[in-house]
Amino acid sequence: MFRPQIKVLDCTVRDGGLINQWQFSNDFVRKVFLALSKAGVDYMEIGYKSSEKYFSRKENGAWKFCSEDDLKRIVSADETKMKLSAMADIGRIDPEDIPQKSDSILDMIRVACYVKEVDKAISLAHCCMDKGYEATINLMAVSKVLERDLDEALADLAKSNVPVIYLVDSFGAMYSEQIHSLAKKYFEALPGKELGIHTHNNQQLAFANTIEGIIAGINRLDATIYGMGRGAGNCPLELLLSFLKNPKFDIRPILEIIQELFIPQKADTEWGYHIPYMITGMLNEHPRSGIKIMAAETMPNLKQFYEDLKDDTQLD
Amino acid sequence: MFRPQIKVLDCTVRDGGLINQWQFSNDFVRKVFLALSKAGVDYMEIGYKSSEKYFSRKENGAWKFCSEDDLKRIVSADETKMKLSAMADIGRIDPEDIPQKSDSILDMIRVACYVKEVDKAISLAHCCMDKGYEATINLMAVSKVLERDLDEALADLAKSNVPVIYLVDSFGAMYSEQIHSLAKKYFEALPGKELGIHTHNNQQLAFANTIEGIIAGINRLDATIYGMGRGAGNCPLELLLSFLKNPKFDIRPILEIIQELFIPQKADTEWGYHIPYMITGMLNEHPRSGIKIMAAETMPNLKQFYEDLKDDTQLD
Repeated sequence: MFRPQIKVLDCTVRDGGLINQWQFSNDFVRKVFLALSKAGVDYMEIGYKSSEKYFSRKENGAWKFCSEDDLKRIVSADETKMKLSAMADIGRIDPEDIPQKSDSILDMIRVACYVKEVDKAISLAHCCMDKGYEATINLMAVSKVLERDLDEALADLAKSNVPVIYLVDSFGAMYSEQIHSLAKKYFEALPGKELGIHTHNNQQLAFANTIEGIIAGINRLDATIYGMGRGAGNCPLELLLSFLKNPKFDIRPILEIIQELFIPQKADTEWGYHIPYMITGMLNEHPRSGIKIMAAETMPNLKQFYEDLKDDTQLD
Repeated sequence: MFRPQIKVLDCTVRDGGLINQWQFSNDFVRKVFLALSKAGVDYMEIGYKSSEKYFSRKENGAWKFCSEDDLKRIVSADETKMKLSAMADIGRIDPEDIPQKSDSILDMIRVACYVKEVDKAISLAHCCMDKGYEATINLMAVSKVLERDLDEALADLAKSNVPVIYLVDSFGAMYSEQIHSLAKKYFEALPGKELGIHTHNNQQLAFANTIEGIIAGINRLDATIYGMGRGAGNCPLELLLSFLKNPKFDIRPILEIIQELFIPQKADTEWGYHIPYMITGMLNEHPRSGIKIMAAETMPNLKQFYEDLKDDTQLD
């Protein structure tokens, strides 16, 4: 698949940081930056933009905050064509915490929100655009949202100036048919806007669903190196680059860094396909209960976990 | 997805045995049999039917041979509705090694062949049908076959009496678009026949491609428990049963046996997504070179492995 409009965003440090509270060494983040840059990836999402009023640096590594000082330790503005992004969660940062683009080496802020917060997200994204950044909105957890509420949120987004909206499968619960029908709905509701896709791998469908998104016309694609991310992780960047026949991409720097850093890292901080995450995905639930039992010293009874979570779901 | 015609075949012991030369304990195979039976799986493929003229029992466990004595140690004829299958590879068994169905507790023989051996496969499958078995033909490695050769093989199969033909992604090289176009080709070339699908997980697409097969009209689906199989493994049965909404299936016995046997087994005999298998899959190559470097004491340079295999492929 080669479509020149396609842009790949790597969110290894941002989404992978959910596993270890963003406690990556400078060396790790610098190496990821260099590998992505050499591989021709369009955007590196280097972390969250969060306010130090709400979160402490004692509990969270630098990439929870992405201050300009943090960023400058890793990268200087002119050394790459690759753009830098940070994610802002509604309620975890205030507009005044975001500097003017002219004072920042970030290029883009992606605002993540639940459907009920879409108006706050539009307001924050507009504020970022006014300050000079590219901005997107990532509408999370839509697999749990009533159709009427989703339609209303999409109508609000359609009226906004935000140019890129992401279809997000937060729980790794979607099959290809849902990706197709949601992409169709988003395109119809959001004329003139670009769509992005962000998937999770609970049911081993993160890469496949990203391909389905591409077939449906989506051009902004999220991935992480070796699929690193909370719980079951994300669409693996190496698979995505290999699928995309765009000559600007080179998979080899990614293979190198996987061998040097990610295979060893996976032995310490386990992500990927595991039955507890598969169960939360198939039941369309937040991965938190799966993450909890994965951290237990002795794995609890998995059949029981499934039955309990299924009962909870049915009582919802 | 619920379609009453859909039938699931589990080939854990047959395909998983390629990892350990079928050296499973009787207890393991018996527990797999009971779990599959309770889960409502339609067929259990319990191993290969191979000739002891060609293979030794010193090097290969019982499930390379599936003699009636081997089978009777595990199962008696009347204890389950689930049917039993064995696979026969062209050149590894002779017709006279296959008993009459009336003397066997096997219900089905699946004949696996490369495109160039299709006439031999048809002859062996007809022989199995004459002896009273259900029979299928699994056409392997079609991702490497020239279209004209494939068309010729399909024309031969169309003239045969063999009722079920499998689309097989031996190298885990196919994307959803190829599954769709091959399924369309097979259906058009094989009027009146049923199609099956057998996938490999080199690019994390085994389950997704099985779903694509279902959407394309394929009713015979292969899977293995926890995806166990040579190299990157197969479509995980637990994901497939969860996708299929057919009330005859129950995922719970599969969750139980995964926890009891397969999670521990995977710590010893590693299968699943690994970069060497990803590389052979993306380059549409047999997994043998990937299996070789996975077995090395120190993992060789993966970028180099990719570059070497790519060069080989281009010189093919």
